[in-house]
Amino acid sequence: MSARWFAEDLEVGRRFDLGERTLTADEVKAFARDWDPLPFHLDDRAAAEGPFGELVASGLHSLAVVTRLVADAVVLRTAVIAGLGADGLRMRAPVRPGVPLIGTATVAEQRLRDDGRGVIALRCELRDPGGTLLLEHLVRFLVRRRPGED
Amino acid sequence: MSARWFAEDLEVGRRFDLGERTLTADEVKAFARDWDPLPFHLDDRAAAEGPFGELVASGLHSLAVVTRLVADAVVLRTAVIAGLGADGLRMRAPVRPGVPLIGTATVAEQRLRDDGRGVIALRCELRDPGGTLLLEHLVRFLVRRRPGED
Repeated sequence: MSARWFAEDLEVGRRFDLGERTLTADEVKAFARDWDPLPFHLDDRAAAEGPFGELVASGLHSLAVVTRLVADAVVLRTAVIAGLGADGLRMRAPVRPGVPLIGTATVAEQRLRDDGRGVIALRCELRDPGGTLLLEHLVRFLVRRRPGED
Repeated sequence: MSARWFAEDLEVGRRFDLGERTLTADEVKAFARDWDPLPFHLDDRAAAEGPFGELVASGLHSLAVVTRLVADAVVLRTAVIAGLGADGLRMRAPVRPGVPLIGTATVAEQRLRDDGRGVIALRCELRDPGGTLLLEHLVRFLVRRRPGED
């Protein structure tokens, strides 16, 4: 991995546009079959009678979308050692197939340690094209510091 | 969905054994290709030179495993209206292919509301057969109250 960014580069407030992804109904159902087989993620007829009145994506599927967007735009360009965890995951509004999911990530914590590593937290969001917040969470990574600066 | 359990039934401290799931190396790589394409989730050679020294599953993949175990053992038997979110997700130790991932869930919150619904939080864990904690998180659901008791 030829990282461009080290822990020093990810300063609090730095913001990344992550691009977007749209899930199809078939993708929503296939993901749910594997990982979260609730009727309102799996089947149009059951979903019509369910709490949302239509098919909606699993919250885990939306989290997977933002994880992929963050990977492509930030993590794969950064000297990440490991993911540590996440907090404050909230499904704020139903995620429907066919709606573009637009991602952003903002650096919310930058803790530079003396052992050559830093902890970086990214506040991530998915919104629809109208700006409605659909999903948010805070994810933390262990990131190498720039060689020679620890 | 013919639910057996309503919000009243999920009392704090109630514990569920979720069974287990073992990921193969091929599954780890395929999931990572879709959702979290970091070298140490994707490729044996890159993983050998990476921070873990071997192939490890994406944290999102481990979360998907526990989500599926919770769905089968609890959520599909419960009058769940929607997932609300999660907190305290921590990847405590690397998840390697071939290692059985044994799940438990314990009710950590039971808030019965006056609108016929309740909020239930489950503390979920994945451990290896030696008892080492690999992943934990707290997930919240909106659940219907038993009809006629709200």
